[in-house]
Order: sequence, then structure tokens, then C-alpha cells
Amino acid sequence: MLLQIGDTYKHEFRFSQDDVQKFADVTGDKNPLHLDADYAANTRFKRPIIHGHLSSSVFTRILGMEFPGEGSVYMKQETEYLFPMFVDTDYEVVFTVMTVDREKHIAEISGEVFIKGTSRRTIRGLATLMHQTKI
Amino acid sequence: MLLQIGDTYKHEFRFSQDDVQKFADVTGDKNPLHLDADYAANTRFKRPIIHGHLSSSVFTRILGMEFPGEGSVYMKQETEYLFPMFVDTDYEVVFTVMTVDREKHIAEISGEVFIKGTSRRTIRGLATLMHQTKI
Repeated sequence: MLLQIGDTYKHEFRFSQDDVQKFADVTGDKNPLHLDADYAANTRFKRPIIHGHLSSSVFTRILGMEFPGEGSVYMKQETEYLFPMFVDTDYEVVFTVMTVDREKHIAEISGEVFIKGTSRRTIRGLATLMHQTKI
Repeated sequence: MLLQIGDTYKHEFRFSQDDVQKFADVTGDKNPLHLDADYAANTRFKRPIIHGHLSSSVFTRILGMEFPGEGSVYMKQETEYLFPMFVDTDYEVVFTVMTVDREKHIAEISGEVFIKGTSRRTIRGLATLMHQTKI
């Protein structure tokens, strides 16, 4: 089924400290703000925060696998990190189709991440992607 | 030392298929375009491509650890994926300080990824980050 402007998709997720460690290992980003509780205690965050780039990976996961899913080709992403995110915390992302170009098979899809059950928004993003059959 | 407009920083990197698999595991993005050579052979890419979000993790790695490094707080990133990227290939990223706000300690730093030794640009990005002592 073709994506339509205004279509939405919701997904809940959380990350563990083990996920953060694995992400640090594979990307090489071993900033102690993400990995070292003692270090983080002396920052304004007071405890380790998740890498923003790990948090925003929910975009590639959902847009690549579920909405619109397999066949998506990423062209662009804009991501604003509005509020720190922590491990073992439930988050919800809400994607909304903002624009559709049927000739080029390109859509812009916004994504907003909230602390689950609250109006506290942690990430605001916009992805541009191509999908030959669903856009 | 304070970042100045026009400062640049270069870094070479590559990813292996094992890195791609680990990234898929931790983010949950198991799009076969990244993991399955037989599947990828039937796409216009002909072979598996690296997750764009893994490739662009070089921004968080370098900006978080080296330039300006520890203490960086990510506020925003815009990333354009211009050309597919593959495993076992040498890439080079060039970061350039574009704007500096000394009062807010915020800088915009562009990053361009090239296939090493060529003018083929694969990613163009712009990161906005805060650093209390280096910006």
C-alpha cells in the first residue's frame, strides 16, 4: 500500500547499558559521558546518557524495516536532540508522512521521540527516503 | 584550545561486514540490503551497503572524542547520504568549523566523507554541538 501524507506509525523502544556499550564498540565512540557513571556524575546530566546517534537509530530501524520498510533507501536525515535520553527508560517514536513525491518515489517522514506516556519530546527529526513501490 | 572558524580535522576509517552485523544487532535494523549478499545482488546496489546511520556515526565518534572531543554535547545533525558506502573500503572524513557562538558555546561543524584518495563524496553533513571549554 502506498504511503499517504498524514499516515502515522508508532513504536516503543528502550536501550540497555549493554546496548550502549555495544554501540560504543562498533562505532568507536567511547565518550565517557555514555559509559562511565562516575564521570557522568560530575556532568550536568548526573548519570550516563545514551549516544544521540544510538537513540536516533530508531529512525533507520523503523523506516528501513517497518514503515515503509524493506526497500527504503535513505537520502537525508535531520535530527535535533532536545533532551537527554537514558538507559532502561521507555520511549515512543511517532512517525508522520509529511510530503510525498510519486514521480521520484521520495517521501519526507518526520519522527518525534517522547518519554513514553508523557509530552516530553527528546528527539525531533525528519528523514527523506526513496521507496520504489511504497512511495 | 578554542575552536576557530575554518579549523579542519581529517580522519580515515573503514567498516567490516562484522561491524555492520553488530550495528544491525544493537539497533535492530536488520534490513537485508545491509546483511544479505544474495538479496543485495538483486538490488541496484549489487552488493550489501553499509547502513547510512552506521557510516554517519563517524560524526559522533570524532566530534565526541577528538574534535573538539570529550565534553561535546550534540544538539543537531543534518546528514545527506549522497552515494552508497561499502565494507572493506577506505573512507576519509573532513570536518570544518563553520560557525562559532562563544556566548552559547555552540559551533556548527560540517563533515564530508570521501572515498579515500578520490573526490567522490559519499556523505555531506552538518553537526551543531555545544562544548563549554573548547567553543
